[in-house]
Amino acid sequence: MKYADRVNSIKVSEIRELLKLTEDPEIISFGGGMPSPSSFPVKFIEKSVKKVLKKHASQALQYGPTEGITPLRQTLIKRMKRTRKIECNLDQLIITTGSQQVLDLTSKILVNPEDYIVVESPTYVGALSAFNAYQPNYIPIQMDENGMKTELLEQKIKENIGKPIKFIYAIPTFQNPTGVSLSLERKKHLLEISETYDIPILEDEAYSELNYSGKNLPPLKSMDKNGLVIYTHTLSKVLSPGFRLGWAVGNEEVIRKLAIAKQGADLCTNMFVQFIAENYIESGLIEKQIVKIKKMYKKKRDIMLKALEKHFPEGSTWTKPGGGMFIWVTLPEKIDTKEMFMDAIKAKVAYVHGASFCPDGSGRNTMRLNFSNTDDNRIEEGIKRLAKIIKQRM
Amino acid sequence: MKYADRVNSIKVSEIRELLKLTEDPEIISFGGGMPSPSSFPVKFIEKSVKKVLKKHASQALQYGPTEGITPLRQTLIKRMKRTRKIECNLDQLIITTGSQQVLDLTSKILVNPEDYIVVESPTYVGALSAFNAYQPNYIPIQMDENGMKTELLEQKIKENIGKPIKFIYAIPTFQNPTGVSLSLERKKHLLEISETYDIPILEDEAYSELNYSGKNLPPLKSMDKNGLVIYTHTLSKVLSPGFRLGWAVGNEEVIRKLAIAKQGADLCTNMFVQFIAENYIESGLIEKQIVKIKKMYKKKRDIMLKALEKHFPEGSTWTKPGGGMFIWVTLPEKIDTKEMFMDAIKAKVAYVHGASFCPDGSGRNTMRLNFSNTDDNRIEEGIKRLAKIIKQRM
Repeated sequence: MKYADRVNSIKVSEIRELLKLTEDPEIISFGGGMPSPSSFPVKFIEKSVKKVLKKHASQALQYGPTEGITPLRQTLIKRMKRTRKIECNLDQLIITTGSQQVLDLTSKILVNPEDYIVVESPTYVGALSAFNAYQPNYIPIQMDENGMKTELLEQKIKENIGKPIKFIYAIPTFQNPTGVSLSLERKKHLLEISETYDIPILEDEAYSELNYSGKNLPPLKSMDKNGLVIYTHTLSKVLSPGFRLGWAVGNEEVIRKLAIAKQGADLCTNMFVQFIAENYIESGLIEKQIVKIKKMYKKKRDIMLKALEKHFPEGSTWTKPGGGMFIWVTLPEKIDTKEMFMDAIKAKVAYVHGASFCPDGSGRNTMRLNFSNTDDNRIEEGIKRLAKIIKQRM
Repeated sequence: MKYADRVNSIKVSEIRELLKLTEDPEIISFGGGMPSPSSFPVKFIEKSVKKVLKKHASQALQYGPTEGITPLRQTLIKRMKRTRKIECNLDQLIITTGSQQVLDLTSKILVNPEDYIVVESPTYVGALSAFNAYQPNYIPIQMDENGMKTELLEQKIKENIGKPIKFIYAIPTFQNPTGVSLSLERKKHLLEISETYDIPILEDEAYSELNYSGKNLPPLKSMDKNGLVIYTHTLSKVLSPGFRLGWAVGNEEVIRKLAIAKQGADLCTNMFVQFIAENYIESGLIEKQIVKIKKMYKKKRDIMLKALEKHFPEGSTWTKPGGGMFIWVTLPEKIDTKEMFMDAIKAKVAYVHGASFCPDGSGRNTMRLNFSNTDDNRIEEGIKRLAKIIKQRM
C-alpha cells in the first residue's frame, strides 16, 4: 500500500512500547499516566446506569448530536462558571471523545503541513502524537518553576514573524509532565502575546481538579477577552478515563468547525456515558469524589517527595507540584535516562525518560514519575530501587 | 483564526441541517439512518454492566490498549470466521470508535491532498465527510441493481493510470443509501481489479447482519488473498449506535498504522462498552437479538414496499433491498427532490434527497427512504403523504 506522507511523521509512541515492558506485577511502575482505580466511583456508576436505562434508554443507546447531549453541556457550563470562572453558552461548547480528540481536531482544523505550533518543552507527549499527523513544525519554549518562559516565547514569535504560527499549546495548571503551573503574571503575559500577535491558545486543563495546594489558579480561558483561547478539559481524572469523555470551549466559529470535523471523525461521542456523566455532575457527587481523590493523591505525592529527598543522590533536583499526577526529575548531566531504562526494568522499577516529552531533543537527563497509580506502601521501595541504579551510573 | 486549507473541503452536512427540521413529532421521518430503539437489548445491558463492574471495574473504567481489549477482539475473530468466513488474527484487528473512525483513519493514513478515492455513486454520505478532510479527488462509479459497475470501474482506472488512486471504498452488502448488494461475479471482478492495479479496497459491511433474504452474500474480505482489503464493521446496527463501537480487519501493517493514527486521535476506544460488547457476543445473545431485529425490520421493509407500490405515481422506480435499512427511489426526471423537501416538511413527512449521496452531482430526482425507525402503522401514511406531494409536481 502507498501511504500518505503524514504517516512518516506519526510514529509508534516510544513510551507505549516501553510501558509494555512494565506489565510484570513485580515492577513498581511510575511510568504510565493513569489514575488510581480506587478513584473510580464504581457504585455510583452502577446506580446511574440503572437510572439512565430506565429513563433514557432510547436516547442513550442511539446516535446523538455531534456536539453532545444538551443536559451534559448545560451542567458543564454551570460547573465551569462556578469552579473555573469560565463563562460560555451552548454554542461555545462541544463534548468530545476524550480531550485527546480536542487535540486532534484542533490541529486538524488549524494546521497545514509546515505550519508552526508553539509547545512547552517538555510537553504532553500525546499532544505531539495528535499534532504530528498534520505535519507541523514546532517552536518549543523552555519552562522553569513558573511554567513556560513567556519572555522567551515573545522573542521566538518575533524571530518567526510572518510565518504561520497557528496556535500555542499550553498546559498551565499542574502540567504533564512537570507538575508545574504557570504563574499569574506569565498567564497575563501569555494572553497579551496571543492578542498582540493574533495567535490562538489551546489551553489543556486536564489536571486542574487535582489541586492539593488549595491555591487559586485561574485558567487562561477565564481571562480571555477576545475568544482566542480554545479550552479543553476531561473527565478522565475525576470520573473514568475508560469513558473517553472530554470537551472543548471556544468561540462559536471554532466550535462549529470542530463539530464539522468531529462528524467526519466519529459522528458523536458515546451517548451512554454522556448520560452517566451528566448524572455525576448534576447530582454533585463529583465534588465529593474529587475531595476523596485529592486526599488520596496528595498523600501519594507527599510519600514520593519524601522518598526522593531521602534516597536520591545529590545533584538531582525535582519539581514539587501543587497538584496533578507527576513529578519531574532532573538528574546529573552525565546520566542518560533513556539508556538507563533497561537497568530500571531489571531492578523492577519503571519511569518515562524525559526526552520523549521534548520536541527540541533536550531532556536527556530527566524523567517523569507518576505517583497516582502506585500503592502507598510501594512508592518508597520504588524510589529506593531507582536511586540505586542512578547511583551506579554516577 | 486562520484555518487549515482542509477546512474548505469539510462542510456542514446538509442532511444534518435538514434533519433538524424533522424533530416535530407529527412529521413521519424516513430521513435519518437510525436503528429502531426497540432493537436495543436494554435488559441485557443492565445485567451486563453489573457483571462488568463486579469483575472488571478497574480495567473497564481505566485507559486501555489502543487496539482494544483482547477478549473482545478474540470473540469478534471467532464470530467473523463463523458468520462471514473471514479469517484473521489479533494483529490484524483493531477496535475503533464506531466504524466511522475507520473511515477517518484509513483516509488519514492513505490519502495526500489531491490523491484519488474511488467511491460508489451514490455512497454513504458520512464516508464523504470523513474522506473530505484529507482533500481527495473522487472517482465516482455508477451502480445498478447488481451494485457498483465494475466494468466501468476498470475503464476509469485505466483512464487514470499513473495517478495516485489510494483506495476503492465499497459497501457491497445492502448498501447505504441504495440497499443494493454487489453480485458475486462483480465481487470477483472487483478483487481482480484491486490486485491487478494494486489498489486497496475499504470494505464497509455495516449492514450485513440485517439480511432478510437469507441469501449467502460473502464479503470481499473472505475472498481476499493478498491482504488488499481493509474490512470494517460495526455494532451500531445490532447492539447500540450510542456505544460507538466498530472495528477494522486488515493486514498487520495497515492495522499497525491505523493504531498509531488512532492513538493520536483518541488514545483508545471506550473501555466500558467494550466489556459489555464482549459479553453480548461471547454469550451468544447477539444471535438471538439479530433474529428479532431482522424480523422487525423485514416487516417494516415489506410494509414500505407495498405502500410504494400502492401509492407512488407511475414513472417512479425503487430498489427492493434484501437487507439493510434503506430503499432508494428514483422519481420522474423533472422532479428535483432537494427542491421538493420543504413541501414534504409542510406535508409532515421527510426523506433525504439523493443528490447528497452523489459526489458526481447526479441523483437530482432520487431520494433515500429509511424504514427501520418508523412505527409499522405510520409507514403507509408517510408514503401516502410523500406520494401526494410528488404527484403535485408531475
